[in-house]
Amino acid sequence: MESNTPLRVALAGLGTVGGGVVRLLDANRDLITRRAGRPIEVVAISARDRNKDRGIDLTRFAWIDDMRDLAGHAEADVVVELIGGSDGPALTLARQTIAAGKGFVTANKAMIAHHGLELAQAAETAAVPLKFEAAVAGGVPVIKGLREGAAANRISRVYGILNGTCNFILSKMEAEGRDFAEVLAEAQALGYAESDPSFDIDGVDAAHKLSILASLAFGTRPAFGDVSATGVRHVIAADIAEAAALGYRVRLVGVAEADAHGLFQRVHPHLVPVDHPLAHVTGSLNAVVAEGNYVGRLFFQGAGAGEGPTASAVVADLIDIARGEYGSPYAMPAAALTAERAADTGERRARAYLRFTVPDRVGVLAEIAAAMRDAGVSIESLIQRGVAADGSAIVAIVTHEGPERAVVHALEKLRGSQSLSGLPLWMPILG
Amino acid sequence: MESNTPLRVALAGLGTVGGGVVRLLDANRDLITRRAGRPIEVVAISARDRNKDRGIDLTRFAWIDDMRDLAGHAEADVVVELIGGSDGPALTLARQTIAAGKGFVTANKAMIAHHGLELAQAAETAAVPLKFEAAVAGGVPVIKGLREGAAANRISRVYGILNGTCNFILSKMEAEGRDFAEVLAEAQALGYAESDPSFDIDGVDAAHKLSILASLAFGTRPAFGDVSATGVRHVIAADIAEAAALGYRVRLVGVAEADAHGLFQRVHPHLVPVDHPLAHVTGSLNAVVAEGNYVGRLFFQGAGAGEGPTASAVVADLIDIARGEYGSPYAMPAAALTAERAADTGERRARAYLRFTVPDRVGVLAEIAAAMRDAGVSIESLIQRGVAADGSAIVAIVTHEGPERAVVHALEKLRGSQSLSGLPLWMPILG
Repeated sequence: MESNTPLRVALAGLGTVGGGVVRLLDANRDLITRRAGRPIEVVAISARDRNKDRGIDLTRFAWIDDMRDLAGHAEADVVVELIGGSDGPALTLARQTIAAGKGFVTANKAMIAHHGLELAQAAETAAVPLKFEAAVAGGVPVIKGLREGAAANRISRVYGILNGTCNFILSKMEAEGRDFAEVLAEAQALGYAESDPSFDIDGVDAAHKLSILASLAFGTRPAFGDVSATGVRHVIAADIAEAAALGYRVRLVGVAEADAHGLFQRVHPHLVPVDHPLAHVTGSLNAVVAEGNYVGRLFFQGAGAGEGPTASAVVADLIDIARGEYGSPYAMPAAALTAERAADTGERRARAYLRFTVPDRVGVLAEIAAAMRDAGVSIESLIQRGVAADGSAIVAIVTHEGPERAVVHALEKLRGSQSLSGLPLWMPILG
Repeated sequence: MESNTPLRVALAGLGTVGGGVVRLLDANRDLITRRAGRPIEVVAISARDRNKDRGIDLTRFAWIDDMRDLAGHAEADVVVELIGGSDGPALTLARQTIAAGKGFVTANKAMIAHHGLELAQAAETAAVPLKFEAAVAGGVPVIKGLREGAAANRISRVYGILNGTCNFILSKMEAEGRDFAEVLAEAQALGYAESDPSFDIDGVDAAHKLSILASLAFGTRPAFGDVSATGVRHVIAADIAEAAALGYRVRLVGVAEADAHGLFQRVHPHLVPVDHPLAHVTGSLNAVVAEGNYVGRLFFQGAGAGEGPTASAVVADLIDIARGEYGSPYAMPAAALTAERAADTGERRARAYLRFTVPDRVGVLAEIAAAMRDAGVSIESLIQRGVAADGSAIVAIVTHEGPERAVVHALEKLRGSQSLSGLPLWMPILG
């Protein structure tokens, strides 16, 4: 079923990942040829700056000045897009490549989150491969795990640690007892966080990935707009310490769940029990859990970003294509994906952690406790602890399982209260 | 690229897993049809006892008395073999099914470990699918993970917890401080261990799985005969306690490594550092780690046995076949697999744990220490601890990194020594 005809690749973008793909194809050339059944060869490249030194000999590839010309490049079977951006040149290139009857491989989570359905429909119509393993969890084959490995299962929930920057920061806060801003600055200095880190730390990047996983897991149409995303900016060292005292670690977890209430998709800091595998995911690792009705709980972990891991996933997609082992990008034809209404988060039942920063004054605890009572929130445990030189304290509460609506209601009651010296934080406890 | 023609399955064996496959295909029928692009239908079955009540309506399937007739069954596209055994009827069925031009799916690790190469060659010649995801780590898609997910990588090492029974026993010994025999008896009562448990607890089952993973990871010809297997029988509660005190957990780990020294394959109890993901694999879970030159360390975990997880993997294989997404069973054509010589384990360098049970007598420690010195084993730490009412004690040693040859040599020097009141145990420390 294989031929010796090479799979010919046109590459758009020669940044970290693009360079990595070229280096990987060079370094593992013979092995890849054996595994893929035929060579995989880059034939054309396009990037912004032709003269930048990337430590790679580019003279052997056709240089294409205008990236849009890759779509129609006569020598290429597949275009690999590694330029990023949800719209603009990446999307134009995707549309034109597929329309030209070529395969398309991308690591572009933002584009797939926003336009994956349209592109999948186009690819299925054109009968060409569209693959995006590198878009979620870098080198970890979670898209393959859901699309194929767990394909026999009704998946009830898919969730995971989808942003390495946030996990790096939270792990470091945990290990060193330091606060967010300080650790972020260090992560930026080390190159683990962007100079404008908001995409990562506000949960947007994880939300892109979560919406892709949700479609694959549940057979639902991508609904990025319905993902609610809260990042890690407001987690303080004391939250991590209180969580630890209670037997939890704080992780930014994206959770998607499909049931009679609709499709729930949320990225939010969670308290994760220490005996849960996600609690042991440290540093910049990514991890994904899928819960299936026959397989039980599957857990995948590995490097979620970086040159090597991302290139590994891109080339794995190319090998699938070289082997002819590909089909509908979303595990089923795009037309078969169902539209689900977004779940009402108020209906969700969970235990929750709430933390209030409070001034050193009589009556503060009474007001918080009254708000909880009036909202119908049942308190499992409460700790008040002095933290600062100015005498301000924190009050950390763990609730019994109850509807999220009640917790939100309690926080609303306390909004603007003189009993709070800062914004409160609540986090669901991963069940 | 899909049709509505069902993929027609003949099923050999209706034990736990066979029944599970029928139940799964019933329960998730619509979903599987959407994902596979066409229905997957059991058309014929064969098992030992036609009249046994399995809680499944079997009247809708053709009942075939002689299992061998499934291979030639005119209505079937694929035969699923779930009867087990490395040779005998399972192997006959595999050969005949492939020769008849049908696909073959199996969960039979023993048969694939012994005859996988022959069957893969036959399947490639006949251009039919041969798939065995369920043979390793049950529901966890590790074969797919190596064959496809990590396909772009040169894999330096693949290792994992491949036997749920042993892990259940070790976890329980760890949690409850109990000894092996007692926990084994309980595992047998609970159905977690067979009445004849030797296949599991002596590491043979894990060795089957390891040899399959090694072929996939390294592109080497299956070499089950070269796997050295030592099980968990000789691990005592005190080993687990000493390991814990030193920051380790005891796990039965199968390790395969390919380098200039050849192909190393061993199943053996190991000390696993508590910050390694394998240390957190508890109960009957399985987990596999693959280390690739671009992707880094990939980690897969889930249920390694049981009706649901195993059926999930079998049906995942059927979905791949229904989609037409399959190729060489070992990631590359069987003819391209290389024959590697078995590595000399004496050359391996690692830190090691040694434990001696010693009588309460002067000079015991001196003899052990002298044997270590004479064999060139460098001691990092040593603890002597009284354990029993009769005054016997254990001596637990952790060595510096050194060649395994020296450790073996030291143990040889001490063989038959009056200073030992029982067989010593050594375990490599996972690095």
